[in-house]
Amino acid sequence: MADDAFHVYDTTLRDGAQQEGLNLSVADKLVIARHLDGLGVGFIEGGWPGANPKDTEFFRRAQTELDLKHAQLAAFGATRRAGVKAADDPLVAALRESGAPVVTLVAKSHDRHVELALRTTLDENLAMIRDTVSHLRAEGQRVFLDAEHFFDGYKSNPAYALEVIRTAAEAGASVIALCDTNGGMLPDELADVVNAAVGTAARIGIHCHDDTGCAVANTLAAVRAGATHVQGCANGYGERSGNANLFTVVANLQLKRGYELVPPQSLRDMTRIAHAITEVTNVTPNSHQPYVGTSAFAHKAGLHASAIKVDPNLYQHIDPAEVGNDMRMLVSDMAGRASVELKGRELGYQLTGDQARELVDRVKEMESRGYTFEAADASFELLLRDSVHGERRRHFAVESWRVIVERRPSGEVASEATVKLHAKGERIVATGEGNGPVNALDRAVRTALEGLYPELTAVELIDFKVRILEGAHGTDAVTRVLITSSDDTGEWATVGVDENIIEASWQALEQAVTYGLLRSGYTP
Amino acid sequence: MADDAFHVYDTTLRDGAQQEGLNLSVADKLVIARHLDGLGVGFIEGGWPGANPKDTEFFRRAQTELDLKHAQLAAFGATRRAGVKAADDPLVAALRESGAPVVTLVAKSHDRHVELALRTTLDENLAMIRDTVSHLRAEGQRVFLDAEHFFDGYKSNPAYALEVIRTAAEAGASVIALCDTNGGMLPDELADVVNAAVGTAARIGIHCHDDTGCAVANTLAAVRAGATHVQGCANGYGERSGNANLFTVVANLQLKRGYELVPPQSLRDMTRIAHAITEVTNVTPNSHQPYVGTSAFAHKAGLHASAIKVDPNLYQHIDPAEVGNDMRMLVSDMAGRASVELKGRELGYQLTGDQARELVDRVKEMESRGYTFEAADASFELLLRDSVHGERRRHFAVESWRVIVERRPSGEVASEATVKLHAKGERIVATGEGNGPVNALDRAVRTALEGLYPELTAVELIDFKVRILEGAHGTDAVTRVLITSSDDTGEWATVGVDENIIEASWQALEQAVTYGLLRSGYTP
Repeated sequence: MADDAFHVYDTTLRDGAQQEGLNLSVADKLVIARHLDGLGVGFIEGGWPGANPKDTEFFRRAQTELDLKHAQLAAFGATRRAGVKAADDPLVAALRESGAPVVTLVAKSHDRHVELALRTTLDENLAMIRDTVSHLRAEGQRVFLDAEHFFDGYKSNPAYALEVIRTAAEAGASVIALCDTNGGMLPDELADVVNAAVGTAARIGIHCHDDTGCAVANTLAAVRAGATHVQGCANGYGERSGNANLFTVVANLQLKRGYELVPPQSLRDMTRIAHAITEVTNVTPNSHQPYVGTSAFAHKAGLHASAIKVDPNLYQHIDPAEVGNDMRMLVSDMAGRASVELKGRELGYQLTGDQARELVDRVKEMESRGYTFEAADASFELLLRDSVHGERRRHFAVESWRVIVERRPSGEVASEATVKLHAKGERIVATGEGNGPVNALDRAVRTALEGLYPELTAVELIDFKVRILEGAHGTDAVTRVLITSSDDTGEWATVGVDENIIEASWQALEQAVTYGLLRSGYTP
Repeated sequence: MADDAFHVYDTTLRDGAQQEGLNLSVADKLVIARHLDGLGVGFIEGGWPGANPKDTEFFRRAQTELDLKHAQLAAFGATRRAGVKAADDPLVAALRESGAPVVTLVAKSHDRHVELALRTTLDENLAMIRDTVSHLRAEGQRVFLDAEHFFDGYKSNPAYALEVIRTAAEAGASVIALCDTNGGMLPDELADVVNAAVGTAARIGIHCHDDTGCAVANTLAAVRAGATHVQGCANGYGERSGNANLFTVVANLQLKRGYELVPPQSLRDMTRIAHAITEVTNVTPNSHQPYVGTSAFAHKAGLHASAIKVDPNLYQHIDPAEVGNDMRMLVSDMAGRASVELKGRELGYQLTGDQARELVDRVKEMESRGYTFEAADASFELLLRDSVHGERRRHFAVESWRVIVERRPSGEVASEATVKLHAKGERIVATGEGNGPVNALDRAVRTALEGLYPELTAVELIDFKVRILEGAHGTDAVTRVLITSSDDTGEWATVGVDENIIEASWQALEQAVTYGLLRSGYTP
């Protein structure tokens, strides 16, 4: 924030990247930083320059490749080692030379950690903090301090914990972020400690982890106790149970507590930004994530569906548009006719009562076999069309297909598919090669149909998801395949289910092509 | 709990089942109820008998098939309709006849909902509550009330909201659960309203949703304000962002607030039970779930890894054994030699410094191509053995393989695989059929090797996961396959990565068999 009244400090690129299974390249980090800047956060912690080559490179490239509008970049690092001068410590030099306007120093504030993990004296730890902060301040950088394990430290030795943050503030640190490093705090107890710290030193910040499921509430409790700097990560990424979810914290404070932390227009981009970041991190999006998850405003209960017709705001805590999300009605066997009719209307079809009932039965029966239409709108619309027409109408019929995948003695792996189709009165046999069995099938279908339907060249398979549904009830496991396709004007998703992954993929592929042809205006 | 001092009330089978993508059969519900009883919860809400045939059947079968040790079963339902007698309402009859010792009635406590959604008068709503509670009490059931939208209702019309709960208590309801139905509350504001309600009526309970990311903290705030009945769902299941996670609530209250809500021995089963329930629901487990997630006590940071060698409790908020979980060290490119050495020691290998460095480099290089060893311990151990031996030692060598999958004109789908291997000086060609390409390959490999290694008959492929890693950086997408295998004494996981899903599966399969042979004592 330009006026510096309240800090939104993102640590996705440093602490968030500690999440199990998350692995960011320098290019990934640059893309995420741009998204966070677009959201309007005040500070972006980019990593630990000097500690690993990737982070050093990030700060180097950031100087020329990042053109931040709102945010300032922060470099994270430790205080000088025991017994050396700050000016002579190579890791401190890396912070100094990072080009970042802000340096966030992590320091121990728990007496036992100083003795057992750092293996130095309590006094030397204070000297390390004082020297490093003063040195970096003298070199012209703004310095923040992350007081590691502050809450456990305060329990163990309150005088020392407070001495640590006082020392840092006196040396010139302008923010002291109190860190619940192992994430074990609950809100009331945490607020009491924040209260004790507020007023002793500089600006107080808060850094929470979600090990008790209270990271967001702990952050809010600290703000109520006087903290004016909140740290967190996009989508709640982080080690163990994750860091405080910065999106949830910002939405709560801005929509329910009256803070203006980011521009309202940027808040309306939050859902898009949250999803764009999952594309980079390649972590499966948490559909239940507050505010920005795809399920956050999705209604399934039949009870609710009928009342939502009356007034959606009766069942929503905010207008989803404020965070760029949408209300969705789910098609599912828990819902009755009301939901199916609503969904039909959303798609532009008027169903009779009998058609809606029949469709509900068909959906229930297919969902019991593993299909899901919640994530496959195009498959649902094909079913819906079949109900309206009273029959299955398709542009082509399948006679047979075959896929061969082999690893040859040379080590080369090859995939080849042959399809035999009937369309517009012709029998067509076509073969495709690909980098895998589904890719080969996709190419074979296109080769077969593109002559008759040239618009298919614009249709592209852009995502392919596989889920094994375990045979929980003594049956064999089945495979569910979801395919997302796109053309010049939009995207659609289709689903296939079978015990054989290739057959499940084929079903989703066949519907994807059918739906693409419908979109191009071909009525079968 | 037998002494009824504090209620742990689970609503997984009713409100949890509203989660997008969750679909429970009657058999599933019975299995989950047994798990919850094993954990020691006091009440299990089984569903809404009369509202749908599945829930009616659940209560019918529960009477003979469920032998609950701790928990009482609760049937959920609405108050009588406007203008009819409670005794004549068929939905009330279904509750009466459910056989459940407890009935939980949902009632509107928000004046606008009474008028707009229920379309009746405020007085008739009170009469509906009074009549239905009295009727069921007179018939011998214990009655709880879920006061729907209580918090928004209290904001809209505090006198009416309190009148609703007073009416229910006077009619004989022994618990009034205040419901934050749309999940929009934050802890402080919620505690103020709970404070106003405590003392006006019966026992006060709390039912929270996670739309602000505060469901757990809201529940704790209500308990601090005087609530002695907490509702929630296993694994935080529920509509939109989910319900309060009952596991997190119980662990927080029991380990950090001194309540004894479930027997300590049952708490030590919590991780196992949480995972067993995901097996039934078939919802991907949230590895970041507090206390019971597989990542909840997993450490990746190099900084931490070296300190954990000194004292693990410096970095953990509780002993993971108290909830049946384990500390894990993760192998990842963020970690340095310290993590790899620790992991090696955990597996029983002593690596030299050079070997550890070389292994770290190899892991980094493979992870950059999409491999992950965090979830594939057996693949990591094979790499580790290769480092120790300075070469790749295997029981068999692969010459080539081929898989054919076809859908014949009859509609039948068939899969057939042929493998050509060399083992113990022999060249072996074998063919397998299966219900999919990987199953066919698996059978072909076993047919080839079982004559030489009869212990392979005990090795089974028990899980198969597929993840498409998007080609975020202009490269083609690759597929990552994780296979879990088991024998009579344990389980192990292996990983394969390739742009071709069949080749990726083959890699994981080949390692799974190799590791199984090592476990059986065959040194290659």
